[in-house]
Amino acid sequence: LSDTPDEFSLIAELFAPLARGYPGALGLIDDAALVAEQPGTEIVVTVDAMVAGVHFLPTDAADLVARKLVRVNLSDLAAKGARPFAVLLAAAFPHGTGRAWLEAFAAGLGADLQEFGIALIGGDTVATPGPLTLSLTAMGRVEAGNALLRSGAKAGDELWMSGTLGDGALGLLAAQGLLTTVDAEAVDYLADCYRLPRPRVTLGPSLVGLANAAMDVSDGLAQDLEHLCRASGLGAIVETTALPLSPAARQAIDADQSQLARALTGGDDYEILFTVPPGAADTLHRLAGESAVPLTLIGRMVQGSAVTLLDEAGRPIAVGQGGWRHFSTHGSGAGT
Amino acid sequence: LSDTPDEFSLIAELFAPLARGYPGALGLIDDAALVAEQPGTEIVVTVDAMVAGVHFLPTDAADLVARKLVRVNLSDLAAKGARPFAVLLAAAFPHGTGRAWLEAFAAGLGADLQEFGIALIGGDTVATPGPLTLSLTAMGRVEAGNALLRSGAKAGDELWMSGTLGDGALGLLAAQGLLTTVDAEAVDYLADCYRLPRPRVTLGPSLVGLANAAMDVSDGLAQDLEHLCRASGLGAIVETTALPLSPAARQAIDADQSQLARALTGGDDYEILFTVPPGAADTLHRLAGESAVPLTLIGRMVQGSAVTLLDEAGRPIAVGQGGWRHFSTHGSGAGT
Repeated sequence: LSDTPDEFSLIAELFAPLARGYPGALGLIDDAALVAEQPGTEIVVTVDAMVAGVHFLPTDAADLVARKLVRVNLSDLAAKGARPFAVLLAAAFPHGTGRAWLEAFAAGLGADLQEFGIALIGGDTVATPGPLTLSLTAMGRVEAGNALLRSGAKAGDELWMSGTLGDGALGLLAAQGLLTTVDAEAVDYLADCYRLPRPRVTLGPSLVGLANAAMDVSDGLAQDLEHLCRASGLGAIVETTALPLSPAARQAIDADQSQLARALTGGDDYEILFTVPPGAADTLHRLAGESAVPLTLIGRMVQGSAVTLLDEAGRPIAVGQGGWRHFSTHGSGAGT
Repeated sequence: LSDTPDEFSLIAELFAPLARGYPGALGLIDDAALVAEQPGTEIVVTVDAMVAGVHFLPTDAADLVARKLVRVNLSDLAAKGARPFAVLLAAAFPHGTGRAWLEAFAAGLGADLQEFGIALIGGDTVATPGPLTLSLTAMGRVEAGNALLRSGAKAGDELWMSGTLGDGALGLLAAQGLLTTVDAEAVDYLADCYRLPRPRVTLGPSLVGLANAAMDVSDGLAQDLEHLCRASGLGAIVETTALPLSPAARQAIDADQSQLARALTGGDDYEILFTVPPGAADTLHRLAGESAVPLTLIGRMVQGSAVTLLDEAGRPIAVGQGGWRHFSTHGSGAGT
């Protein structure tokens, strides 16, 4: 990709339709976008960066790369209880990026913006001699004062999570052809989970008023739970036997117990980890049904600062010195 | 830079203080930031990406890289008439980026955030095998309905610009040691303009209610004026003899007339180009004094779609086929 007039035009032509329906996007032809301020809500804003070869495979399809970028950000908003309304894209495309690739990327972006009912309201496109590097800023809204924070957990809260654990991390292996211990169906299922996260956009807002604290699980449950504990000034106890596993992940772990560590620390889950006061189980099970996302009680918040994982006999599992992230196969870095 | 705990901690330690004073930043330890919505204003949001070796020199000092990133974005907000309040940073740091570099980068970022009275409210930091790649999302506010748009120009409007033209583009040459026709003082002046833009943050908001249209000049006056004309459905006539030049730029152009094309098309000006109904000259000269930024009448908006540059004898200057951007020495790409 060079900055020739043709490529300016192509990008404008591909992206401009993604701004339709949001007048403040100014058709993507101005220097900035306008967001009307509404009474009673506050804006929740987040940004995530992804680099080819680090956060996705260079061979991943262009449309899936775009959709993963959107979904990773929507997961952050969902974990705050916010409903998304807009994104801005900063893209550094490698020299030589072709028309077909850009078209597929824009198509994937458009498909997800439509699926989640949001608009592209701004961006910047540049050429790079390096790998494809993308960052997306996503904006959502939550009732003022009601955002779910990492810092709100109380001692005695139950610890719950949505969905299943480790499918993304095991899916990276599967997508690379490195997961040989499971059947073909499981390989496909896990690889798909890695490539196309399902952000919990319906569940997140419905946790407002129920959960005391929440965050999305993107860097691995073990590490993210440490962050939640630190922000809340508490410790946590997790029953590993309660951890929700998909049939495919269970197959992989049954074949190779060391994959449990990967599931716990590998990242790319994009589930919501949250704490609730005891007594909310019935409400949560109803919510699980309404949002078609399983919700599982996995532990509890306690005084102190330690995150303790218990095995099936109630014994603490040793996790090595220096935390969990040494297990991580690829880093998503320090982010908010 | 690898994603080890130490580097997580370093970045957290360096950036967290930049969020002080903005409670919605949640100390940069949460997944997102909260922006309270205010009555009577609207939020203006913009994003710009920069790649080492493309938008700044790999040898540029880390603090200046950070400050340029902030200023390029604030220039976009200023051109909309908005007052900035917050930024989010997405940074892909090359493997091996050292502590000293990161400290200088954070110091430069902090210096500018303080100078402009804004906070870092979120971000994402990742490692890249490629060049340093940065994107900044900047947020500002303008009175609801009063943002200055590219599309508001009227036929008969006067065309004005702030500051001087071409210092950034000539400054790139100067910074590379390639501008040998001017004296050392001029080299220093121009290189400084390239490295550290002065966004017109005071002037921009004061143009609200006066200007019919505005945009920042970042990709070269010629190209940016074409964008303003297209958005407004008009043409423009520019008197090149009226174009404001710094003494240093005049020195370079007097020595080599071909540098005028570079000044017109080279980009990196970060001045505000705006249109006003005739009769505002006195008000604008007063504003120029108050904001300590020269304001110059350079032409007028006309019916049609052509951008015509006139020489000292009133003859149109030929600018080659296909627009101006072929002159550009480095591209900032298609952006909003």
